[in-house]
Amino acid sequence: MNASTALYTDRYEYTMLDGALRDGTAERSCVFELFSRRLSGGRRFGVVAGTGRLISLLRNFRFDEAELRLLKDHRVVSDETLTFLENYRFTGRISGYREGELYFPGSPILTIESTFAEAVILETLALSVLNHDSAVATAAARMSIAAGDRPLAEMGARRAQEEAAVAASRAAYIVGFGATSNLEAQRRWGIPTMGTAAHAWTLLHDSEEDAFRSQIANNGVDTTLLVDTYDITTGVQTAIRVAGTNLGGVRLDSGDLPTVAQATREQLDSLGAVNTKITVTSDLDEYAIAALAASPVDAYGVGTSVVTGSGYPTASMVYKLVARQGTDGGWVGVAKASQDKSSMGGRKAAFRTLEYGKATSELVIVSDGFEQVATAAAVPDARALQVTFAEGGDFDSQYEGPAGVELARAHHARVREELPVRGLALSKSDPAIPTVYRDAED
Amino acid sequence: MNASTALYTDRYEYTMLDGALRDGTAERSCVFELFSRRLSGGRRFGVVAGTGRLISLLRNFRFDEAELRLLKDHRVVSDETLTFLENYRFTGRISGYREGELYFPGSPILTIESTFAEAVILETLALSVLNHDSAVATAAARMSIAAGDRPLAEMGARRAQEEAAVAASRAAYIVGFGATSNLEAQRRWGIPTMGTAAHAWTLLHDSEEDAFRSQIANNGVDTTLLVDTYDITTGVQTAIRVAGTNLGGVRLDSGDLPTVAQATREQLDSLGAVNTKITVTSDLDEYAIAALAASPVDAYGVGTSVVTGSGYPTASMVYKLVARQGTDGGWVGVAKASQDKSSMGGRKAAFRTLEYGKATSELVIVSDGFEQVATAAAVPDARALQVTFAEGGDFDSQYEGPAGVELARAHHARVREELPVRGLALSKSDPAIPTVYRDAED
Repeated sequence: MNASTALYTDRYEYTMLDGALRDGTAERSCVFELFSRRLSGGRRFGVVAGTGRLISLLRNFRFDEAELRLLKDHRVVSDETLTFLENYRFTGRISGYREGELYFPGSPILTIESTFAEAVILETLALSVLNHDSAVATAAARMSIAAGDRPLAEMGARRAQEEAAVAASRAAYIVGFGATSNLEAQRRWGIPTMGTAAHAWTLLHDSEEDAFRSQIANNGVDTTLLVDTYDITTGVQTAIRVAGTNLGGVRLDSGDLPTVAQATREQLDSLGAVNTKITVTSDLDEYAIAALAASPVDAYGVGTSVVTGSGYPTASMVYKLVARQGTDGGWVGVAKASQDKSSMGGRKAAFRTLEYGKATSELVIVSDGFEQVATAAAVPDARALQVTFAEGGDFDSQYEGPAGVELARAHHARVREELPVRGLALSKSDPAIPTVYRDAED
Repeated sequence: MNASTALYTDRYEYTMLDGALRDGTAERSCVFELFSRRLSGGRRFGVVAGTGRLISLLRNFRFDEAELRLLKDHRVVSDETLTFLENYRFTGRISGYREGELYFPGSPILTIESTFAEAVILETLALSVLNHDSAVATAAARMSIAAGDRPLAEMGARRAQEEAAVAASRAAYIVGFGATSNLEAQRRWGIPTMGTAAHAWTLLHDSEEDAFRSQIANNGVDTTLLVDTYDITTGVQTAIRVAGTNLGGVRLDSGDLPTVAQATREQLDSLGAVNTKITVTSDLDEYAIAALAASPVDAYGVGTSVVTGSGYPTASMVYKLVARQGTDGGWVGVAKASQDKSSMGGRKAAFRTLEYGKATSELVIVSDGFEQVATAAAVPDARALQVTFAEGGDFDSQYEGPAGVELARAHHARVREELPVRGLALSKSDPAIPTVYRDAED
């Protein structure tokens, strides 16, 4: 896992670096900000995810022979720039929202402070990781809210690119999913895995009964049997005949789930299997989960919709230059004015104001330069949202690896409690809280 | 790139393997089939992509110490199964549609013939790769059709997980995109890269004019200037004042593109820059591209929509057991009957019937066992759709690496010519051709 990540970039970043080294602007101190202008799909909140992955990937953002050769062979940059890259190491400061934190339009999710040269080439990698992982985490958090206390498992690997699937398992776990089907996610991030049998298991055997008998012999009576390969009623009957009333669970993967779950519960109860659990796994998303709230379902398995962000497979975060040193060495807030794509110049400090423990606003205090413009003490009844991930090029390892995932999961559970009731609804609307900008000078 | 891929799997595959080794069914000869019941989004065709990647990943599907330890530590399988896996090597046959080929509902995209034990654990990896890459390729092919002869570049890396982005660049290139912004895609798959400057380039400098001057000094007058950081009309005027009328191009990344493109063309022409090209890059998808057909646009850059499959980020391919040896050694076609998720048992041979060079149907001939049931000679006026990717565990290397990408790109260009006119429309409808099943005995 220490391959160089320096080519997960768009070519134009190197073209800009090349030009800036030539014209002298490369050394200008800059503040880049990663933020989102809006929440996708009329959602009430977003969840930041991917930060722990990004930190590890940034550690490996360096130029070995293979990377330099690619840039040379395709004349991406000049020889002078190759020399600069050979010695490249990010030495600046990165701060931002903790993984698992909620975000809203304009939240300064990540702030990168360094020379232009050091920061400009991190754009694509930072956005790839945070846009993907946050899109999954946001959708998954809505599913977790809809599921309430019932356990949720992520099983969407087959519907996502193989590496994206591992990142998706991780993001879903951070916001409350309890397990994944994906073994690579367990290996890499320590996420518990689950899973018993597919339809192929039943089809492989000469009869459904043979398949059930074998599964119970191998996995014990507390296993979960998949009962819908042929006919669900027959499947349930066979399952209890073979396993007895102590069968752990049955899984339903097709049909109109509220109807089927109800009928299956009644059948199980009538057979005396009152403790046998029902897991449903067919085409679930946050709306289907919510619609099953009153049904006798014990656990959910979610596939496609969680790994694809339930209709919004990417967040709309962007990476923008918001402040830089001017010719005189002083700070200049900068912003583009493009139609519908304007940005707000200046460095930002962010706070979540709270009343009785519930969020009331996303307070963003704007100044020009590098300095931390406001501290938590300066804003009473508010929580400071930014922490430091890297200082002088040293990355803070506490956010990385499986430990970082657990930290993010705990943080998310804590801050989701701050969501006002209107933030929990699934319907499309405005963000749960407004973003309020204040000038540091005020 | 030779890390083991054996844990890109769902846990239940190993649970089934474990049970099958215990009850003796693991050695049954099986035919698994990867297919899609439908085309997402009322599209008229799908494009198979990812095959070349999959072959390379399957080569590395093996169990080293780390994989065995994970399976042992989490008690996924028994010690006997660990011993089996230690020696695992796929020794069967894999055949299917060539990369770049079109597919339709029921097309037998991939057929895996081996023992149950060898094939059951390949499900997730095969689906992850083909579902993702085919979703991107299918969306990208529609964009390529909409763009006609105008060049298309993929620049969506920032809106996809970092590894998924590389796979997406590859899939888009196979179906007709000419370039990508993604340097890793160039390194790994040989895809040409492009890109000049972002808004940060302009904001970094003291004025737009400074930024343009520097870019031209560094990249020459045939570069493309991004002119919408502040005001497009002023930007274009500055661009031509600085570069002269031989400026290579301008890029528009915001605004109502048909209007802005028209105004920019008129302005460029009035300034004498009649050969300066216009590239547009703002929120394009196949519909926006089609809507610009009559506009004076020279090239398109597509981001989010292509890497996320333009509304359908995953194909709906599934991996199903369709035939197996029975207790007597004879073949049994198997199929599940689950509501809305039924499958068709039996091994399939697939042909595209043609009339005057245009496709008229997807002919699928169904039999029970391992034997190739029909050859091209048996079906006149048709093209046989399946080739062999692996035989006796030997993978055919011609489909891998950059050479495989070029092969797939050429194949796609050829077979897209077979699409009947109704297959080219963007609106939602039925598949361009019907899928016709025929029994091998008939």
